[in-house]
Amino acid sequence: MKARDASPSAAEVAGAASAPALIALDWGTTSLRAYLFGAAGEVLAAHTSAAGIMNLPSAPEDGGFDAAFDDACGAWLAASPGLPAIAAGMVGSAQGWVQAPYIETPASAEALAAAVVRVSTARGLSIAVVPGVLEPGALPNVMRGEETQIVGALEAGDGDAGAPAVPQSALIGLPGTHAKWVVVEDGRIERFYTFMTGEVYAALTGHTILGRTMTLPAAPDAAAFARGVTVAREHGAAGLLATAFSVRTLGLTGQLAADEQPDYLSGLLIGHELAGLDAVLARRGLALRASAPKLIGADALCERYRTALAQFGCVNAQTVRHATERGLWNIAVRAGLVKPA
Amino acid sequence: MKARDASPSAAEVAGAASAPALIALDWGTTSLRAYLFGAAGEVLAAHTSAAGIMNLPSAPEDGGFDAAFDDACGAWLAASPGLPAIAAGMVGSAQGWVQAPYIETPASAEALAAAVVRVSTARGLSIAVVPGVLEPGALPNVMRGEETQIVGALEAGDGDAGAPAVPQSALIGLPGTHAKWVVVEDGRIERFYTFMTGEVYAALTGHTILGRTMTLPAAPDAAAFARGVTVAREHGAAGLLATAFSVRTLGLTGQLAADEQPDYLSGLLIGHELAGLDAVLARRGLALRASAPKLIGADALCERYRTALAQFGCVNAQTVRHATERGLWNIAVRAGLVKPA
Repeated sequence: MKARDASPSAAEVAGAASAPALIALDWGTTSLRAYLFGAAGEVLAAHTSAAGIMNLPSAPEDGGFDAAFDDACGAWLAASPGLPAIAAGMVGSAQGWVQAPYIETPASAEALAAAVVRVSTARGLSIAVVPGVLEPGALPNVMRGEETQIVGALEAGDGDAGAPAVPQSALIGLPGTHAKWVVVEDGRIERFYTFMTGEVYAALTGHTILGRTMTLPAAPDAAAFARGVTVAREHGAAGLLATAFSVRTLGLTGQLAADEQPDYLSGLLIGHELAGLDAVLARRGLALRASAPKLIGADALCERYRTALAQFGCVNAQTVRHATERGLWNIAVRAGLVKPA
Repeated sequence: MKARDASPSAAEVAGAASAPALIALDWGTTSLRAYLFGAAGEVLAAHTSAAGIMNLPSAPEDGGFDAAFDDACGAWLAASPGLPAIAAGMVGSAQGWVQAPYIETPASAEALAAAVVRVSTARGLSIAVVPGVLEPGALPNVMRGEETQIVGALEAGDGDAGAPAVPQSALIGLPGTHAKWVVVEDGRIERFYTFMTGEVYAALTGHTILGRTMTLPAAPDAAAFARGVTVAREHGAAGLLATAFSVRTLGLTGQLAADEQPDYLSGLLIGHELAGLDAVLARRGLALRASAPKLIGADALCERYRTALAQFGCVNAQTVRHATERGLWNIAVRAGLVKPA
């Protein structure tokens, strides 16, 4: 399958003839990605900025959300006034533009579309904000933004012959700062797990003794990464608090070079994540090795997870692309914001 | 047993009549504790400063170690010139005053004493620096400073009727930044495990999203701590990367107040540490619940561990006091630096 960037270039959409039909926003903590869709659901244009909800051009009370929105979409709206608009991600959190309360699991695309919350821009445009999903319980879980990607992944294959079809029951992994693993049954988000893998990696490398002896390698070190995964898988019984110290002791004893340590630690953390996932899946009669998970995320990170999953006997993981755009379009259609051509 | 500070006050040693016989230093990364011993092994005076090896009054190449040593012990040496001196801790590391190479497990007090390395002060005094201990293997482990405390704990009971006697085979826990759990057999350090519990707690609270919603309680919250331990013990299968996120989701869903979150996370981390310890002990045919571990560390922290251990069915944990001073004296005697009166 040909690797494609998540944001099709103007050249890729040059053949598109349909008129602008929808503005869609993937608005997270640290970035804002805006898409202009044509009536057939194709991306006509995209705009990415660092104006995440914690990084707005001005404070929320000083119109920071409006300013960021105008910067991203103002030209599109000038050319096509009154376009419908949809947004997903942390923009709907308590710290966002408007709070779109979580809906509970099991959560379908229909339920998400029915629960969108509206916010009006300073110029009077109404934006539909997609809710997050809450799995209640003794240890609750929450997602915000990923639900839209999952809807998109479940639709994958539409209009993209190269994309793998995702069955309506699937295990979906979304690596990142707060990695999610989501069990989808009959097209609904049934339950999910959050692993703070990316954020803990940053905290350990930036703010503990482990980072002090590390140097960044010239290129990612696949062998060091695989070694970390192996240690977590085979020697992980004592848990991450113990295995993490091996970065230091292997370094002190000359068994792990300074520039091997970052990828080794990355493998260690992802290995613990997958071992933990395997353990909780087992309680439900599922096995990672028997699953064919779909991965949503940056290509290089998904590839890292694919190699780690293979160590757990799971060799059928596939990366799903354009899940975010597909999900935003899908929910917009279900919410009646736009009718597909 | 009456709680006693690790550094006996002048009043406590007022009855001591013997002359100064030894200077002993517990010199770590962030603090320097100096003791003046009498010939019977009693502490005559103590001096504590923040002049750890990473916090010297001047750079090492500008005489920083000498300056810190003079500040701590200069008055004692002026009154009793030529006293023998011993030091343990990070002062013997590659970043220390002199490198005292690790000795390997199994490590006895005799072996530690035989491997001390000498460094001369600018004034010509010779200080014997105790080596650390290395457990070689696929995942090596190291300690530096704790070996001396363990020697002291194995001697506990001498001269202190209130202190519990530690059998020559024991499980010894040393909570802290890098918590150690040490298996002692026949008086020798056979193997040990390091858990980065304290440092990970600081990194998670200071440098991840978990810290953002926390407020410090007016007093330690024992119930929140116990709840964290329970979650790690009963719902910890997914691992720390997953359970840590419950600080946030329990907060978001109104089930964990902001000022409960610090102690809840502390309980979670210590619970994962003990669950991991239990798992690795089980592979050796040992069980935490059947053990009577000795704890070395600050009273409040040891008490925290005792309550957590009780959740794992381990109700016989005891805190050992004055382990550092006892260990320094013991190794000094074995190294021939001083003859006990």
